Amino acid sequence: VDPWAELTMPVPILTLTTDFGEDSPYVAAMKGVILALNPAVQLIDLSHQIPPQSVQHAAFFLAHSIPYFPIEALHVVVVDPGVGSERAILYLEVNGHRLLAPDNGCWTLLAGKASRVIQVAEPRFWRQPVSRTFHGRDIFAPVAARLSLGLDPTELGPPVRDRVRLSKSYPQPFLGGIRGEVAFVDHFGNIITNIPADDLASPVGALAVGDRNYPQIINVKTYGDAEPGCLVVLASSAGLVEIAVVHGHAASRLNASIGTPVVFEFASSSP
Amino acid sequence: VDPWAELTMPVPILTLTTDFGEDSPYVAAMKGVILALNPAVQLIDLSHQIPPQSVQHAAFFLAHSIPYFPIEALHVVVVDPGVGSERAILYLEVNGHRLLAPDNGCWTLLAGKASRVIQVAEPRFWRQPVSRTFHGRDIFAPVAARLSLGLDPTELGPPVRDRVRLSKSYPQPFLGGIRGEVAFVDHFGNIITNIPADDLASPVGALAVGDRNYPQIINVKTYGDAEPGCLVVLASSAGLVEIAVVHGHAASRLNASIGTPVVFEFASSSP
Amino acid sequence: VDPWAELTMPVPILTLTTDFGEDSPYVAAMKGVILALNPAVQLIDLSHQIPPQSVQHAAFFLAHSIPYFPIEALHVVVVDPGVGSERAILYLEVNGHRLLAPDNGCWTLLAGKASRVIQVAEPRFWRQPVSRTFHGRDIFAPVAARLSLGLDPTELGPPVRDRVRLSKSYPQPFLGGIRGEVAFVDHFGNIITNIPADDLASPVGALAVGDRNYPQIINVKTYGDAEPGCLVVLASSAGLVEIAVVHGHAASRLNASIGTPVVFEFASSSP
Repeated sequence: VDPWAELTMPVPILTLTTDFGEDSPYVAAMKGVILALNPAVQLIDLSHQIPPQSVQHAAFFLAHSIPYFPIEALHVVVVDPGVGSERAILYLEVNGHRLLAPDNGCWTLLAGKASRVIQVAEPRFWRQPVSRTFHGRDIFAPVAARLSLGLDPTELGPPVRDRVRLSKSYPQPFLGGIRGEVAFVDHFGNIITNIPADDLASPVGALAVGDRNYPQIINVKTYGDAEPGCLVVLASSAGLVEIAVVHGHAASRLNASIGTPVVFEFASSSP
Repeated sequence: VDPWAELTMPVPILTLTTDFGEDSPYVAAMKGVILALNPAVQLIDLSHQIPPQSVQHAAFFLAHSIPYFPIEALHVVVVDPGVGSERAILYLEVNGHRLLAPDNGCWTLLAGKASRVIQVAEPRFWRQPVSRTFHGRDIFAPVAARLSLGLDPTELGPPVRDRVRLSKSYPQPFLGGIRGEVAFVDHFGNIITNIPADDLASPVGALAVGDRNYPQIINVKTYGDAEPGCLVVLASSAGLVEIAVVHGHAASRLNASIGTPVVFEFASSSP
Repeated sequence: VDPWAELTMPVPILTLTTDFGEDSPYVAAMKGVILALNPAVQLIDLSHQIPPQSVQHAAFFLAHSIPYFPIEALHVVVVDPGVGSERAILYLEVNGHRLLAPDNGCWTLLAGKASRVIQVAEPRFWRQPVSRTFHGRDIFAPVAARLSLGLDPTELGPPVRDRVRLSKSYPQPFLGGIRGEVAFVDHFGNIITNIPADDLASPVGALAVGDRNYPQIINVKTYGDAEPGCLVVLASSAGLVEIAVVHGHAASRLNASIGTPVVFEFASSSP
């Protein structure tokens, strides 16, 4: 079955990722502005629960969700601690995926190169007057709607060369172990590290998170392989080393958050 | 590009605003009832995180989101502390925007006059039997779905003259300052007052919130104009005077909630 | 008005119910996988706020939302404490409603018999490689998308006879009262019991929840029939006996959660 067969044109998909929460009218206002310009767009909420102003959290979130979308989608990201300042707003194409995002590095953990980066600089596509504190409503929303209607991105403004990139820290192997850091804490409290699971060739014997040591950790394939309450290490669904407490909240128990240092020591093969 | 060009009829847009949260089955049940009657409707979540029974919160939320929507949308609002009592349910047209809401004043902060107010009184459009505690599922949802299918609102019931209005408090200027109150606290903890930003012609020198004084406050255009942690005053995106803590939570720090009195004293022009 | 008149085929409706929250990229990744396969599907969020791994909570949630949907919908449920273990994934038709769910009993409170139960066993419909911890993205999402495109469910795998069922506890009447338990706590803190409202023929005089007694409880038809702060008993919108605190949070005040024993004593008709 070809889902497009009976449709005369693709329904444009427009996703929203913000730190606005749902108790405030900000997401709703953005949806209104978008639908007023393009009532046929298919709005998809990715998240409005990014922790306030956490560009690092947004970056991991985007890196592990955007790649699954069809390239016809346009992804609008408003996690924007620099709103109203001189930070630019960018239209980006990264590995074929299209984003509209503040120039704060939130897109830089996405795999692949940015083949096109354009500064959103042409006020004629914006909602006027533009407020100093809510570019989501006044710039991102109308520009996104116009792109979904077929506006050529080159009309938005000039190409950009210099843009903000998050510094990416790489894990450091040492004799008998590997050092890394916490890349993300998920909704269940599972700790996702920046260490590729493939780099952990040997089973882990001991763990340090921050300045505390955990001499007991169980190597598992999935949560159900150990008893509830056990501290386990496994490969996350994103292919990274993950620390979890079975049916518990590892980040609270280990006092971990994004950036906390993590050290794994391999189990010695002989006693 | 005309988004309608290839569509034979507008897709009806139906928005939902409730205090039901997402852990309970109430929003889901409403969506089911609506889609069973009109599977082609475009459902848009505005919020299900209105604080329980807070009509004041809902009123600000609606006033600052509904106006951005196209007038083809129908807005269903179920923040309804009086469910099951004698309070009426209203179909309203306010400045061209169509709402279905309990008669508790939640729509009365919307700009513009209500050109049409009809009581939802005809049980033949409802789901039977009607429960005493969940009119969202049994009255709002089926009536909304039928309106989205083209039902003439005049069939819902008789026109209404008397309806509940929220008492609106207006700011009071005095020599050297202005008195108002907290109109809303947003997801970031920013305090939005009921004072139009245009009424604050002079820079602010001191602030009182509730019974505490804050002699130091910085006048800014946007959050980035001061250091993290600073208490600032600025024009909100809704055109109201806003009190914020840069990258912090002003409402917690200043112990403010809807209705808390606020006094701004202008900075003296000479020392 | 017939909503289908101008449409050449029904828009497939696909609902999502998870315990993933919205701060993590898991729901977004699932939406991406689904939309990449079927960009025309209508995605409807039921909830992503099921408490982590709470199959009991999910079961009540589904029982009181799925029945309202049109049978054209497909309901994807990922509350899955056994992910990666040997637990099966099931395609089910219950009373005409179609679900994709882990074999953990989460669907067993739905009214009606399962007329068709098929094990999702054919890897050719999955995303490869399949992770051990995120079957939502790798199995549920692609299978759901393919079903929404018209895949015959019999192709997914073999029919299943044995499947997990939640043990359902039934209320026990005694002379002068009835014993039951807490079936659900809703977003407002209202306590929904497993006792059908019709079984409570006489007014209630006293209440016990867990090991504490509440000699004062008011029998009402709806919340507005008693003063704020009062402890009341009424028929819930699901037709079950409900305990509420007017404009308050009954579950916190009475320290109740799913499974807590509840005893109602009827009011004596003579003093």
